[in-house]
Amino acid sequence: MPELRQNMATKEWVIIATERAERPDGFVQSEALSITGDQPTFDPTCPFCPGNEELDLEIECWPERDVWQTRVVHNKFPALSKDDPLTRKFDGVHRWISGAGHHEIVVDHPKHNTTWALMAPNEIHAVLEMFQRRGWSIREDERVEQIIYFKNHGHRAGASLKHTHSQIIALPIVPTNIRQRLEEARRYFDDYGQNVFRVMVENELGLGERILVESKHFVAFVLYAAPAPFHTWIIPRQQSISFLYAQPEELADLAEVLVNVLRRLYFGLRDPSYNLIIRSAPVKEISNDYYQWYITIVPRLSYAAGFELGSGMFINPTLPEGCADFLRKVKI
Amino acid sequence: MPELRQNMATKEWVIIATERAERPDGFVQSEALSITGDQPTFDPTCPFCPGNEELDLEIECWPERDVWQTRVVHNKFPALSKDDPLTRKFDGVHRWISGAGHHEIVVDHPKHNTTWALMAPNEIHAVLEMFQRRGWSIREDERVEQIIYFKNHGHRAGASLKHTHSQIIALPIVPTNIRQRLEEARRYFDDYGQNVFRVMVENELGLGERILVESKHFVAFVLYAAPAPFHTWIIPRQQSISFLYAQPEELADLAEVLVNVLRRLYFGLRDPSYNLIIRSAPVKEISNDYYQWYITIVPRLSYAAGFELGSGMFINPTLPEGCADFLRKVKI
Repeated sequence: MPELRQNMATKEWVIIATERAERPDGFVQSEALSITGDQPTFDPTCPFCPGNEELDLEIECWPERDVWQTRVVHNKFPALSKDDPLTRKFDGVHRWISGAGHHEIVVDHPKHNTTWALMAPNEIHAVLEMFQRRGWSIREDERVEQIIYFKNHGHRAGASLKHTHSQIIALPIVPTNIRQRLEEARRYFDDYGQNVFRVMVENELGLGERILVESKHFVAFVLYAAPAPFHTWIIPRQQSISFLYAQPEELADLAEVLVNVLRRLYFGLRDPSYNLIIRSAPVKEISNDYYQWYITIVPRLSYAAGFELGSGMFINPTLPEGCADFLRKVKI
Repeated sequence: MPELRQNMATKEWVIIATERAERPDGFVQSEALSITGDQPTFDPTCPFCPGNEELDLEIECWPERDVWQTRVVHNKFPALSKDDPLTRKFDGVHRWISGAGHHEIVVDHPKHNTTWALMAPNEIHAVLEMFQRRGWSIREDERVEQIIYFKNHGHRAGASLKHTHSQIIALPIVPTNIRQRLEEARRYFDDYGQNVFRVMVENELGLGERILVESKHFVAFVLYAAPAPFHTWIIPRQQSISFLYAQPEELADLAEVLVNVLRRLYFGLRDPSYNLIIRSAPVKEISNDYYQWYITIVPRLSYAAGFELGSGMFINPTLPEGCADFLRKVKI
C-alpha cells in the first residue's frame, strides 16, 4: 500500500510508492564505475589538472602552489559578480537585484580520476577546511546573506567537468526555500520547545533502521521521508546553526563519515551521479536554538517530472529502510 | 551583469546569468525531432495503441470504445491507491498518511507517433474536456484535497512511454509547496487588494516583450523570472481559481493557444522534452479573489544541480525576453 510520509523539519510530504516498489539493487548503475574509473590520472585538456592551472583565476591554494592538494579558483563563467555593487530596482511591478555575490570553484584534488569516495579522509578534510576558510572570508562581504557549498558529481547531477570539484555560491538574498525551512524549524521550537533536527536525530538513533554511520560527532541516515532513493542526511550531534562553526576535530571526523557514506554509494551503486550540499543558516545569523546545519546527499537516480514540478512533492519507489539496509551491507 | 529577478506571485528568486549567456538557439536539440518523429504510427508492443488496450484498466473513453479519440485508464503501477481508506498515523515523531488517492493516465490520441504540437486543436480540446470530466468525478471523492493534471513529454521530462499521454494525480493532502504559493497570493491580496496573477498579466500585456500568444480568453508569456530557458505560463484573462470551472468556449480557445505555444517549441527547438502542468487551487476551495489557475510549460533543457537543490533557486543562462523573441519568430 502506498503511503505519504512527512519530513517533520521541512513539512514536505513524499509518496513512498511501494506498489511500484523497486528493490534498492535495481538502482545499481549499468556502466560500471563509469564517471570516475574511465578517466586518465592526468588530462592535458583539463583546466583543473596540475600544469594547466589558469593562475589569474586562482584565489587560494593549499598547502602551496607547486604542490597543491586543493585549490580555489574563480568560476570562469560566474553566476554572480564579486565586483558589482548591490542595487535593488522596482522595475514596474517587478523586483530586481543586481547579481552581486561570489561563485568559486574548489578543485578537490590534483588527480583527474579520483573522487571523494576514493580520496583519503585527510584529503577530504583539507577540502572541508578550504570551504570553511573561504566561507569566513566571503562572510566579510557585507552584501552576502547566504552561502551554499555544494558538489555535483556526474553528468546527471549537473557536473560539466569530470575532474573532482566543488562549488561555493554566495547570494545577496536568503532564498525563499531556505526562509521557509527556517520558519518551519522556528515554529517547531515555538510549539514544542525543542530543536526539530535534534528530535529527528534522537529518534533515528533510537530506531536504528535508517542509520548508515554513527561517529563521535555525526550521525548519517537515510531520511524517513526520503524524496528519492538513498536520500541521506549527515547531522552533527552538537547543535549549531552553521558549518562555519565546526571545530577542527569535528571536521576531521566529518571527513571520515563522508568517505564512509560515499564509498557505500560508490561501490554499492557503482558510482552514481549525486549532489552533496552543506546547508547552513544565513550568514548574518549568529546563533539560535531552532536551526541546525547539516549535509544532504542526493543520488540522482530518477528524473523530476510534471508531478514533482507541479506539487513540489516527490514519489519515491523504494522503502528508505530498505535503502539504508542495502547501503549498510556494502563492503567498503 | 548577472541579475536576480523575483517572481512576484511565488516570491521565488532566480539568477539570470547573462555572463554565461547562451543564445536561445543554443538550445535547439541536436537529434532532429527525435522523440516523436522516429516512431511508427502503430507499435504492436505499445499498451496505448488501438488494439492493445487493457480493457480492465479502462475508466472512460471518448467518443466510444471502438473509435476512441482519447481514453483514460488506471495507472498499472499507481503512486496512490483509489481503494485504500484515508488513515493518519503518528509513528513516534513521524507523520504518516495512507496513500489514498487517484492516479490515472489519459491516452491523448490513438496514433503512436503524434504529440500535442502535431495534433489538431479539436483533438487537444477533447483531452482538456476529458481532464475536466475526470476532475469533476474525482472531486466527488471526499478523501481528495488536491488534483494535479500534467503531461511529461520526452525522456528528460520523465516520460517512460513514448505514446502521447497525460496524467492525473489526486492527493489526500495539499502539498506544502502549493500551500505556500496560496499563502503568498493571499498575502499580496491583503497588501494591495489585487490578485497578483492579474497584475502580472496586465503588466506583461502592457510591455509585450515576453508575450508569446494572446487569444480571446488566454495570455501566454515567458516568465519575467523564468527559472529556466523558455519557461512559459498560460493564464486565463478571467479570474478563476480552478481549471474545473473553465467554460467549453474557453477550453476550445485554450486548445488553440496550447497548440500554438507547443508548435513554437517543437519546430523552434526540435521537439524538446517538456513538462506541462495545470495548477489549480485545492479542490475544496470553491472561490476566492486572490488565486488564479494557470498552466506552466517547462522545457527540460538543463539539469537541476547542487545549487538548485540547496537553495530552491535556479540559474537561467538566457534572457527571458530573448527566449520570447526567439519563439515568436518560429514559423508554425
